[in-house]
Amino acid sequence: MIRFIQTAAIICTCFYTIGAEAQSKKYILAVHGGAGTILKSSMSPEKEQAYIQAITRALTAGYAVLKEGGSSLDAVETSVKIMEDDSLFNAGKGAVFTHEGRNELDASIMEGRTLQAGSVAGVTIIKNPISAARTVMEQSPHVMLAGQGAEDFARERGLTMVDPRYFRTEGRWQGLQRALKEDSVKAVLDHDGKTLWKDGTVNADYKFGTVGCVALDKSGNLAAATSTGGVTNKKYGRIGDSPIIGAGTYCDNNTAAVSCTGWGEFFIRTAAAKTIADLMEYKNYSPAKASAEVLNKLKKMGGSGGVIVLDRKGNMAMLFNTEGMYRGAVTEDGEIEVSLYR
Amino acid sequence: MIRFIQTAAIICTCFYTIGAEAQSKKYILAVHGGAGTILKSSMSPEKEQAYIQAITRALTAGYAVLKEGGSSLDAVETSVKIMEDDSLFNAGKGAVFTHEGRNELDASIMEGRTLQAGSVAGVTIIKNPISAARTVMEQSPHVMLAGQGAEDFARERGLTMVDPRYFRTEGRWQGLQRALKEDSVKAVLDHDGKTLWKDGTVNADYKFGTVGCVALDKSGNLAAATSTGGVTNKKYGRIGDSPIIGAGTYCDNNTAAVSCTGWGEFFIRTAAAKTIADLMEYKNYSPAKASAEVLNKLKKMGGSGGVIVLDRKGNMAMLFNTEGMYRGAVTEDGEIEVSLYR
Repeated sequence: MIRFIQTAAIICTCFYTIGAEAQSKKYILAVHGGAGTILKSSMSPEKEQAYIQAITRALTAGYAVLKEGGSSLDAVETSVKIMEDDSLFNAGKGAVFTHEGRNELDASIMEGRTLQAGSVAGVTIIKNPISAARTVMEQSPHVMLAGQGAEDFARERGLTMVDPRYFRTEGRWQGLQRALKEDSVKAVLDHDGKTLWKDGTVNADYKFGTVGCVALDKSGNLAAATSTGGVTNKKYGRIGDSPIIGAGTYCDNNTAAVSCTGWGEFFIRTAAAKTIADLMEYKNYSPAKASAEVLNKLKKMGGSGGVIVLDRKGNMAMLFNTEGMYRGAVTEDGEIEVSLYR
Repeated sequence: MIRFIQTAAIICTCFYTIGAEAQSKKYILAVHGGAGTILKSSMSPEKEQAYIQAITRALTAGYAVLKEGGSSLDAVETSVKIMEDDSLFNAGKGAVFTHEGRNELDASIMEGRTLQAGSVAGVTIIKNPISAARTVMEQSPHVMLAGQGAEDFARERGLTMVDPRYFRTEGRWQGLQRALKEDSVKAVLDHDGKTLWKDGTVNADYKFGTVGCVALDKSGNLAAATSTGGVTNKKYGRIGDSPIIGAGTYCDNNTAAVSCTGWGEFFIRTAAAKTIADLMEYKNYSPAKASAEVLNKLKKMGGSGGVIVLDRKGNMAMLFNTEGMYRGAVTEDGEIEVSLYR
């Protein structure tokens, strides 16, 4: 039976405190819907409720899989698919647009028992990139497939393919138009192409929305999954951290399931997800302490974002160094917690 | 002045012993040309000499950069470019062919002082992928660019572009024909497409040849670089570990410069390069001990390959769990060592 703690969604202030070693609850599944400039002041009550409900749906579905004895791998795929199908998040339907006006999607998945992993990058016609990532893991000897090759593989394996227009939402399209306009404004002010691109393309406002999930099943196996549309106005076939094992996603039964969100380049340069796992393995850190160390390092480098981390004992951390992170978790007893802000 | 120890190239038997903590020599640059089934019994004296000379050329050029006070970043790019331009190695000219008969190249580079990194994946018309990776690092806010987008970026930034036929060598082409023939033989014996692909595509004989370099300059800065054509007969836009920061390449002045070669999927799943750095940072392991731990883990999982690792003190390790690894290193005094076999 699911018990929903609605208050947690509204009043909670960073309840996953850094260094909170002792945890009375056993968590079995957590999700994020991206980290970034998420401020209560700029959120309407309707939009707030929509996010809370969407995160709750993802948690509820993943929890149902685990409760029925399903694998953590099934659970994370189920939860991420729900968020991919929901246009509120920058993954699957509702993904942000590239500079050329396309939706290029990245996703990865990993299971902790075997260290098997799968990933797709830059795909444009696969309805659920996370399912494609799982298919790469289970039905190929490879970990990472990109572009049209990944799409050919997914089609041959029977995954649902869609017209690229399926991913389009008006809000994201307008987001691209704003970004392009900023680009051209900057082009007037500054003719240095490099500076223009640096400032114009990777606008901090356009990079949140990645989704992810970590889960622990009844057999004690962990799994992690991440899916994204990347950053608005991205160019040149840019690949972020989400499809990169060790950066955006990592999972090992010996340590933890990890999914990251934020400014992908910094998560790649720090191999953020694997570093969290290594701090737990080699320094015996808790999920919260390991996450805090990596996010602090990232912040010093100029990066921002958040992580969700779950170990085999049900210890869980959801940390971020941004204004907010769409996030939620469910305990073994079915207690759901959802939060948006700090 | 460069002193060349030719004997080392011939008689040396695993002189970089696992656990060799105390090292009298200070190394400043090392390269690998891939690890795999490299047996003295199957190597002609001429071919052996060709590899020794090619590795020596790469070491000599990188050493010259460092000796003149150049950066480790310049040194690793210089050495890797020489190996990309040499058709003996599976990188740049001489890269292996994909299933479709194309050359798809991957490369990455990272500097230890800033943790800046750059990478390209699946590029087909950039003469030197390692220079493109460096340009991504230095002239874009991104770390990883893929496919045609990466090529557009490289062209705009003025890199040398070539006709795809530039990369073709007859030997690699025949390698693909053999692999395709094996595929069709297996297709007769076994109609399970999955098994066919698993056994046919990723043939252990076709996956060595990746090149890499690690260097330490006079300012005490480390850099690492890796470049590859991937595996013969690869399909579906497969991306291996070479362009993935944390898997095939990692570099941090606090720990080491690392470049890997081998069965890429295992290096991705273990985030091999970053794990070596983390073992050094969090457990105070030497380059050799950290490398051995990661390679042993990889072996247990069924993976094979090798690594070169260099720290700021000039401690160096070149370990592999295959029959051999094309490799060489140079000390601060210009003493060159080259080895091919165990």
